[in-house]
Formats: sequence, C-alpha cells, structure tokens
Amino acid sequence: MELLRHKVVSEGIVLGQGVLKVDSFLNHQMDPFLMREVGREFTRRFAGEEVTKVLTIESSGIAPGIMTALELEVPLIFARKQKSLTLTEDIFVEKVYSFTKKESNEITVSKKFIVPGERVLIVDDFLANGEAAFGLARIVEQAGGTVAGIGIVIEKAFQPGSQLLKEAGYRVESLVRIASLEEGVISFVEDEAELTD
Amino acid sequence: MELLRHKVVSEGIVLGQGVLKVDSFLNHQMDPFLMREVGREFTRRFAGEEVTKVLTIESSGIAPGIMTALELEVPLIFARKQKSLTLTEDIFVEKVYSFTKKESNEITVSKKFIVPGERVLIVDDFLANGEAAFGLARIVEQAGGTVAGIGIVIEKAFQPGSQLLKEAGYRVESLVRIASLEEGVISFVEDEAELTD
Repeated sequence: MELLRHKVVSEGIVLGQGVLKVDSFLNHQMDPFLMREVGREFTRRFAGEEVTKVLTIESSGIAPGIMTALELEVPLIFARKQKSLTLTEDIFVEKVYSFTKKESNEITVSKKFIVPGERVLIVDDFLANGEAAFGLARIVEQAGGTVAGIGIVIEKAFQPGSQLLKEAGYRVESLVRIASLEEGVISFVEDEAELTD
Repeated sequence: MELLRHKVVSEGIVLGQGVLKVDSFLNHQMDPFLMREVGREFTRRFAGEEVTKVLTIESSGIAPGIMTALELEVPLIFARKQKSLTLTEDIFVEKVYSFTKKESNEITVSKKFIVPGERVLIVDDFLANGEAAFGLARIVEQAGGTVAGIGIVIEKAFQPGSQLLKEAGYRVESLVRIASLEEGVISFVEDEAELTD
C-alpha cells in the first residue's frame, strides 16, 4: 500500500529496541483519509471471506477497525484492556503480554457480541510478537466463531508474530511489512521477496 | 438526531447510579453507519468554526472522532489516559477524574500536535460531569489553541457537565440529551424545552 509506505518513510521515527513511532498518523494523531484507505484495502483483501464482524483492541486499532467495518458493512467490536464497571455480564477474558509496555493485560469481550458461526476479521495497527492477535483469535474461538483473517496495518516482519500466526493456520494480510529498523533505517520486505515466499 | 435517539431507546440499558450502557453500538460494539452519521452531524453543526483538528480521548471517543475528522478533512488526535513508552517527547498532561470508574487518570497529548492558533473541536461519546471535556479544553488552551466547540454523542443532562462547560464559555452540541434515567426509564430533554432554554 504505497500511501501507507510513504507515510511510514516520511513520518515514522525509529526509537531504540525495534520501536517505530508513528504517532503523527496512526496511534496518537490519526490521518482520517489514510484510515479510510486502510479500511478499503482490508475490505478488498478479505472480500471473499464473508466477514460478519470486525474485532480489534483499544485504542489504536479502533480507527482502522471502524473504517474497515464501515466498508464491510458489519459492526466493529473493540476488546477492552481492563474490565469496565459498565460491563457486568459474562465476558470472554484472555491474557495478553505487551513487549512494548512490558506488562500483561486482560483483554475482554462481552459474550453477547460474538456468537457461534460468526466469521470475525481481526484488525490491529501493529503486529510484532503476535500476542494481541493470538489473544483476539482465542476469544473468537472460545465464542464458537471462526477467524476470517487478520489484517495488520504495519507488520514488523523481523519479529515472529506473522510467522507464528500463519503456522497456526491464520490468514494474515499486512499492509506494510518492515524488514528491519536497524541503525535507525526503516527497510521494507521487498515485493519480490513476498512473491517467492 | 433521530437515528441515535432510536438506538438509545431500543438498545440502551439503564444500570444503577445513573449509568446508561450503550455497549451494543457506541462503546464496545460500534455501529459504523451510526458513527458516520455522528461525524456528519458534528460537521454540520460546527461548519462555521474553522476547525483545524479534532481532539478526543481513548477509547470510546475515537470512532466518532475519526468520522468527524474525515468529514471535516482535518486530523484526529486522541489523548491517552496513561503515558506510553513510545511517547518520549514533551507532552501536555492534565488530571481527569472519572466518576464512573472512580479513579483519576492523567491524560496526555504530545506538544507537537497542537500549536498556537489551532482551532480544536473536542469530541467525546458521553458528557456527565464534564471532567474529560474540561481536561481536554485545558490542554488545547495550554497549547495556545482555541476550543472551537465540544461535540458530545450522549449528554446526561441531569449531571452538571454541560451547564459548567457553557458557563465557562464553551459551545456544547450534544446529539441526544438525556433528562433522566430514574426507575430504569430513559427520558430525553424535549426539543421544546431546549428551545426555551
């Protein structure tokens, strides 16, 4: 996705320890036109998957998630990272470890919003170790639903999440794939390399 | 906004202590078409305000915020409720107390995203005591910007936030205004009453 790659190159800032800061357009300030294009691209890629719901996790997944849900004409659910006082009924709970924040969160989804037979598209802003995506997938499967696919805005292909998710049988579509952030330089997985995967 | 009022009546659940649960379309599962209409309505109401940015707070403000930003053709910023490891530069910080969750959060916005002269539209899902809206407004003003208005999806008109914000000089536009949740019944501030305010 050329527009997104351009944004990553022109506005992304490499911090230490494999962290890419994209807070000018993706996870603090957000570009609504880019988010709309992300939603359209996920919709194009997962068009044949008969998606019934989009599932993401607060907070940075919500904007790409709602745009994808709009294009797919289905509801969005966002998993919460801690229990809310207004969620009193039965909930699905999974533990997710964040390597960036070095803490575990419980992510929760109300049982009434994913029912058996549902085909759920998981959307998130970043994929690194795959912890969040696996947690969301376990919730879908606990509910008797099927993971229709996993749509990622930015994949850190130098971390194992994508590989692990694919080995577990999930279809993963990442709009940009970063090969390396070493020495402060953002390099992408080349299209040629992807074709010979 | 008739579509929204219909959703509140048909899907809203009154819990104790003035809490209205709208997790089927606004703050857990989200209806993307409703969110788009919310964005269009805020854009219509604030059309003359020369808005340069939309500002909201994670997490439930993000979906109405991004749709409003899309319609207004400006960026969205969402304030974070805790400091993130990837936000290392200078930030604006304000304390906000949540009566629902009975805890204080620090809300933060990166200094680079609101600059002097900016006209900022604040958008949030709920208005009750006005804590979050006041915190966001203080951040805008710390930055040398102007609050162009405050757009609220659901106002609890039986709590003082709206009145306090208006007394402080802010323009508040709420898409639905709830007069009471007493005895489990949702009643609205009537249009007639609003006209004679």
